[in-house]
Amino acid sequence: MAPLNEQLQAVRQQIDAADSELVQLLLRRRELVAQVGVIKRAAGQPLYVPEREQQMLQLRRQQAEQAGLSADLIEDVLRRVIRESYQQQQAADVHLQHKKIVVVGGEGALGGLFMRLFVSAGAAVYSLDRNDWDQAETLCADADLLLLAVPITLTVGIIEKLPALPKHCVIADLTSIKGQPLAAMLAKHSGPVVGLHPMFGPQQVTLAKQLVIVCHGRGREQYQWLLDSIVRWGAHIREISAAQHDQAMGFIQVLRHLSTFVYGAHLAEQQVDLAQLVSLSSPIYRLELMMVGRLFAQNPELYADIILSQPHTFTMMNDYLRSFETILSQLQAGNKAAFIAKFAEVKSYFGDFSQRFLEDSQRLLDTAGDAQQIN
Amino acid sequence: MAPLNEQLQAVRQQIDAADSELVQLLLRRRELVAQVGVIKRAAGQPLYVPEREQQMLQLRRQQAEQAGLSADLIEDVLRRVIRESYQQQQAADVHLQHKKIVVVGGEGALGGLFMRLFVSAGAAVYSLDRNDWDQAETLCADADLLLLAVPITLTVGIIEKLPALPKHCVIADLTSIKGQPLAAMLAKHSGPVVGLHPMFGPQQVTLAKQLVIVCHGRGREQYQWLLDSIVRWGAHIREISAAQHDQAMGFIQVLRHLSTFVYGAHLAEQQVDLAQLVSLSSPIYRLELMMVGRLFAQNPELYADIILSQPHTFTMMNDYLRSFETILSQLQAGNKAAFIAKFAEVKSYFGDFSQRFLEDSQRLLDTAGDAQQIN
Repeated sequence: MAPLNEQLQAVRQQIDAADSELVQLLLRRRELVAQVGVIKRAAGQPLYVPEREQQMLQLRRQQAEQAGLSADLIEDVLRRVIRESYQQQQAADVHLQHKKIVVVGGEGALGGLFMRLFVSAGAAVYSLDRNDWDQAETLCADADLLLLAVPITLTVGIIEKLPALPKHCVIADLTSIKGQPLAAMLAKHSGPVVGLHPMFGPQQVTLAKQLVIVCHGRGREQYQWLLDSIVRWGAHIREISAAQHDQAMGFIQVLRHLSTFVYGAHLAEQQVDLAQLVSLSSPIYRLELMMVGRLFAQNPELYADIILSQPHTFTMMNDYLRSFETILSQLQAGNKAAFIAKFAEVKSYFGDFSQRFLEDSQRLLDTAGDAQQIN
Repeated sequence: MAPLNEQLQAVRQQIDAADSELVQLLLRRRELVAQVGVIKRAAGQPLYVPEREQQMLQLRRQQAEQAGLSADLIEDVLRRVIRESYQQQQAADVHLQHKKIVVVGGEGALGGLFMRLFVSAGAAVYSLDRNDWDQAETLCADADLLLLAVPITLTVGIIEKLPALPKHCVIADLTSIKGQPLAAMLAKHSGPVVGLHPMFGPQQVTLAKQLVIVCHGRGREQYQWLLDSIVRWGAHIREISAAQHDQAMGFIQVLRHLSTFVYGAHLAEQQVDLAQLVSLSSPIYRLELMMVGRLFAQNPELYADIILSQPHTFTMMNDYLRSFETILSQLQAGNKAAFIAKFAEVKSYFGDFSQRFLEDSQRLLDTAGDAQQIN
């Protein structure tokens, strides 16, 4: 027998060879996926077909199980590969070549993303910004869609300033709140109106599997083509009233983020040694810290505007603070029973979701663990 | 040319064939990894070798880049495959066959995990629970390690009740706080003492890449074998004083979790429609909700005990509440400038971490997006 180190060396070389084959296989698969993209575009079919994806995954899970390989392993690997496929299939899919689209705020990040999408779909796309407002009337005169991609605080003012739009022209906005912009658009324009809230950031490469919330205004059949394009780009849409949208966002965008903001501010005030905190963190604590720290790499104006534009959430946030005080003073009095009773109450409110969330997050944490840098 | 649907069908069959090859390749790789496991155990080498992993990933990234394939894609796929490898290499690695180990609380989840690890390492392992306390003296008489895996609230009491241990016997605990247990162990036993805080839950299949925090007590050279085993099982250890440990955990385990708890309680009180909230969530909001909901699938006693056992954190939590009130009342007064100034202050405190956290979490969110169920 060869010495152990030589044996180890030999097997490791074989593993490297297998991994090299893996790269080759992924390259080959990419060629095939590119062909699918070409055929789909010719047939005008959507990029993202949930049933086909489900079927692919099921077939491979079964094969893996029969062969004694972890079905979760092959599913995770394939899902990652499929994500890459969507990014790559996102080539020119020309289907809006007869539309003229004006994007107000097209020089901003999110406006720019939508401009690129419309351009790739063959539309005639124009950006309207504060510097070329004198052309607004000309640009809008024969527009099919006017899309507002401007900061929350400016949205309503800009809507009011818009020139008259042709009767058939769709007006839509991308603001994070929906009540006020929708009302302003309906007041301004008597044609088709729709409110959109893209639930993703401008860094998104493809819309595949992303979510766009739709708040209907007026004349749905006249803006259906816009929703169809969004679905064709791979996103799914969720319809809801503007009031319900704004209430739900109050809990997520406002309260949760503010609570995260205050936590970050508190760490800063206490001058906690962050590097030490990170080095002592399990995957779950690291994730908690990530969720806090990431907020401060983003746009403070946007956070401030989201909070300030929803004054109805202040009552709710004050209620939240009162809850916090009550729970803290119970704990401070050593009242463990009260804490446990409250816990049971909330657990029952979460119902099946808490177990599902635990499992989903565990899966995510496993992935976070894969990438963990030790040194 | 065949009709588009037939063309699509044909290419999809080729993709299925490639995916089937992928399953075969992963099976073959697994065989090779099993061989590595056998050789490593024969050579007494550790399961997890960061340099080898780094080298494997670098080689494949280079190959992918040269071939025009995404280097991140192959890295993500390989990391996922490597995780499976660790789980599988974790076979019997007998290296503690001369040790006698008593686990107090071995019937609990975390105690059980450590019992299995010691048994697989060939040690003679005994569980000591409240039902067989009358055997404590006999069991401990010739023990090499007494490991405490009992609830926080009981730890100190049980340490005081322990029978005398042989002079060479190591005493160690697994409690989430370290100051009090360590002091109690040092007072009880004049031999080697060490405090351990495993930063993972009992559901962990392998210790590969997990973190164990070590607070030294006394006689390190005499418990070095225990730390060596932990490293051999794939974990890495981080040394810190008990006081620093407890302070850091106050920020993570106590304050962050309590804030999450109150947020969950608030959603319950407001009877927010959770299913609707989930359906309106982007990956980041879904992750926020997951972090909240998962808490309530866990053990309320444990949370309560962690908080109540650290009364020094109450001052800090009251400070946190005052910060929250200040920030909220500034916002309520429409003072956007104060919010933005605070934001800048915290951003500068987070320094490079905020951008790093944003990127790391983006990567994680991309993965979460892969698995997203649309219907």
